[in-house]
Amino acid sequence: MLNTVDLSDTIVALATPPGVGAIGIIRLSGKDAVNIVNEVFPGKDLTKEATHTIHFGTLRDGDRILDEVLVSLFIAPKSYTGENVVEVSCHGSEYILQKAMELFVKKGARPAEAGEFTMRAFLNGQMDLSQAEAVADLIASSSESSHNIAMQQMRGGFSHEIANLRQELIDFASLIELELDFSEEDVEFANRDALEKLVKKIRTLLKALIDSFRLGNVLKNGVNTVIAGRPNAGKSTLLNAMLKEERAIVSDIAGTTRDTIEEVFNIQGINYRLIDTAGIRDARDQIEAVGVEKTFEKVKQSAILIYVFDVIETSPEEVKADLEKLSTSGLIILGVANKMDLNPYTKAEHYTNDFLTEDHFIPVSAKNDMNLGLLKDKLYEAVVSGDLNTESTIVSNTRHYAALQKAYESLDAVLDNMDQGVTSDFIAMDIRQALHHLGTITGEVSADDLLGNIFGKFCIGK
Amino acid sequence: MLNTVDLSDTIVALATPPGVGAIGIIRLSGKDAVNIVNEVFPGKDLTKEATHTIHFGTLRDGDRILDEVLVSLFIAPKSYTGENVVEVSCHGSEYILQKAMELFVKKGARPAEAGEFTMRAFLNGQMDLSQAEAVADLIASSSESSHNIAMQQMRGGFSHEIANLRQELIDFASLIELELDFSEEDVEFANRDALEKLVKKIRTLLKALIDSFRLGNVLKNGVNTVIAGRPNAGKSTLLNAMLKEERAIVSDIAGTTRDTIEEVFNIQGINYRLIDTAGIRDARDQIEAVGVEKTFEKVKQSAILIYVFDVIETSPEEVKADLEKLSTSGLIILGVANKMDLNPYTKAEHYTNDFLTEDHFIPVSAKNDMNLGLLKDKLYEAVVSGDLNTESTIVSNTRHYAALQKAYESLDAVLDNMDQGVTSDFIAMDIRQALHHLGTITGEVSADDLLGNIFGKFCIGK
Repeated sequence: MLNTVDLSDTIVALATPPGVGAIGIIRLSGKDAVNIVNEVFPGKDLTKEATHTIHFGTLRDGDRILDEVLVSLFIAPKSYTGENVVEVSCHGSEYILQKAMELFVKKGARPAEAGEFTMRAFLNGQMDLSQAEAVADLIASSSESSHNIAMQQMRGGFSHEIANLRQELIDFASLIELELDFSEEDVEFANRDALEKLVKKIRTLLKALIDSFRLGNVLKNGVNTVIAGRPNAGKSTLLNAMLKEERAIVSDIAGTTRDTIEEVFNIQGINYRLIDTAGIRDARDQIEAVGVEKTFEKVKQSAILIYVFDVIETSPEEVKADLEKLSTSGLIILGVANKMDLNPYTKAEHYTNDFLTEDHFIPVSAKNDMNLGLLKDKLYEAVVSGDLNTESTIVSNTRHYAALQKAYESLDAVLDNMDQGVTSDFIAMDIRQALHHLGTITGEVSADDLLGNIFGKFCIGK
Repeated sequence: MLNTVDLSDTIVALATPPGVGAIGIIRLSGKDAVNIVNEVFPGKDLTKEATHTIHFGTLRDGDRILDEVLVSLFIAPKSYTGENVVEVSCHGSEYILQKAMELFVKKGARPAEAGEFTMRAFLNGQMDLSQAEAVADLIASSSESSHNIAMQQMRGGFSHEIANLRQELIDFASLIELELDFSEEDVEFANRDALEKLVKKIRTLLKALIDSFRLGNVLKNGVNTVIAGRPNAGKSTLLNAMLKEERAIVSDIAGTTRDTIEEVFNIQGINYRLIDTAGIRDARDQIEAVGVEKTFEKVKQSAILIYVFDVIETSPEEVKADLEKLSTSGLIILGVANKMDLNPYTKAEHYTNDFLTEDHFIPVSAKNDMNLGLLKDKLYEAVVSGDLNTESTIVSNTRHYAALQKAYESLDAVLDNMDQGVTSDFIAMDIRQALHHLGTITGEVSADDLLGNIFGKFCIGK
């Protein structure tokens, strides 16, 4: 299947972000990578140099000196892609980098597609598919937790786990396949009790991985958290008080914040993507109803609602009425009772109702930074139950999640069929199905269109 | 003077442009550069490795793996700065790069100021001041000609020329200084005729360099070219016809085009920065007068005016009236007679006047791409008289231009004083002045505030 992908040519791409900087790097990979660079780098014969060495010289287009550069050599298979790789470190001028790219293309390199370097690393056996996917996740990671998950996956933690499960199944599957060869003779090489035990064990492990996805997805992509409340509830004061310390790394960097997300802040390594809403009021007229409608939409996109209310101005009945409108299935509601400094005797039980539990009632005084720590604890608990164990494997990739679910279903079918005394060939088929789905995770089983889909999401040059 | 700049610490900066890419590089320079990286790069002792080698491994903050990285070693003095330099090539994630920066700072490196790497290269004698300045020009260059000038300067062409002139003067100056020691005895070690000849020769060479600045500045910064004409003269058609092939490299790259410049196009390696204006009319009422006022402002900022007119609709008298208003001192006016296809018998002599010479009358049909080549030739000729000789030294830096002028004035004073038979000590003083001004170009004479001014314009990491 994979041999429709052409590995015979040499690819080239800008490996550093576009824009002006001190240095910019152009990377080539393929069997002619060294030869191509050598042709335009006079004064030294790069083809005679050792791997992992750096060479200073001039990059020349004919007689014209394009730049003074450093050339780094990585000779196959000791490189990222497993092929010959050359990195040319130029001055970070867009003009120079563009001319250098043109020069390498003129000398026979082909501009790389997005993700093509990493795809080659996969095809050349330098990493499996799950590890390759982690490279893109790693580059995109913007919090400690998303970084940890991607790093563990890139270093093969998840692949190792899947490979172990798969191997145990394969051992059994081969015994069953053997039975099929002797089907006339009604033998049982594969012990049915042991098989059932194994399948159940693997199913339990898969279940744990599948269940980790909800958390994994949150750690990777951040938690959509909508903030709502009546005008003058103190929403802005609360926001500012929380953001002044906890603003996430990503929000300092231009271009990373998503369109409608106004702020990202970080609690113990988890990114909370805060969606602000206009103050809500009782929708007594048409115009106000539109505002509430918009808030509803934003609530639907969120996992957590921080409902802020003023303990002086807002009655328990009004709180209940607001939450009745805002509540949706699965939404975690935190009720922030603000301005507690003005009425310190406010009791949680006055405000708890069908939508707001006593445990989720958080008395604060945003103005005085009172109890903001408690709010953060509650936000963290809403996502992570118990300690966040970064050692355990957490699934964060939707494709892996789907594959694990399919494998799980196939194992269910195995158990059902065994229960009903179905013949070995059907059991073998379902086991093969489970093996197939697990194999797609690490790429032992894969198709070209799947690869295109995965690597197309990478940036050019990776 | 220079020892107020601290070279004892180790500096660190992101060397690649900010943003997401395949790789991002953090660069350290200073005596502890290798030690600092070695502390967070377990598994290999970098302090025992050779210069110009690359090492794969993990970057660790305590137990936590921050990234899998490539470390490139440049051991003093074989590096850009002349100090120990380490480049750490990380995955191009903003999160990782920020954390890695923090890690190196924690281990004792100091975040570098803008241009500090290149300033160290200068202070450590790796390059002179004019070469260092060329590094910034090289990174900023966006056309073949600006790139060529910066490259020649960086490789020392200009410095060499200045050093030669300076050496000849120094030889003579020392003879005159010798006379001062024997001033009682009325001897002349320095032959006055030979000195006069030498000073005149150097003055001529300086004059050529000074004169090259107009062109150099244009090649480096592009030529401001304003386009004006009455409504429906065919300005837009002309623009589109010209831009479709000749659009400059820079205009394809986001963020490089300057605010008010709408288009940049390139003719034989020179960037023309095109400033568009609203159509002008006879300012018969107040509102139209405002539009013309704005056009005047843009004309004042420009070196070339492309005046477009419709040969059917606009009479020679109207053309003259328009140009009378638009013309300013020193402005080069090209008159583009558009829609020649509708009236091929239009003659240049009908339209030439005090402001438009026959040589600058360009009959075109923008719609039919007729004579656009001629317009381009005229635009090129307006900037470059004769062939653009990229071998000769061209001054493009305002600071160098000012220093050359001051040196020239000092040599003028030398000649005047000799003419008037002034005593040797005055002549010696003026020669010393000339030497001083020439020395500031290459940095043999320099002051801290000058250095801060020069390197402060660099990007961080260079």
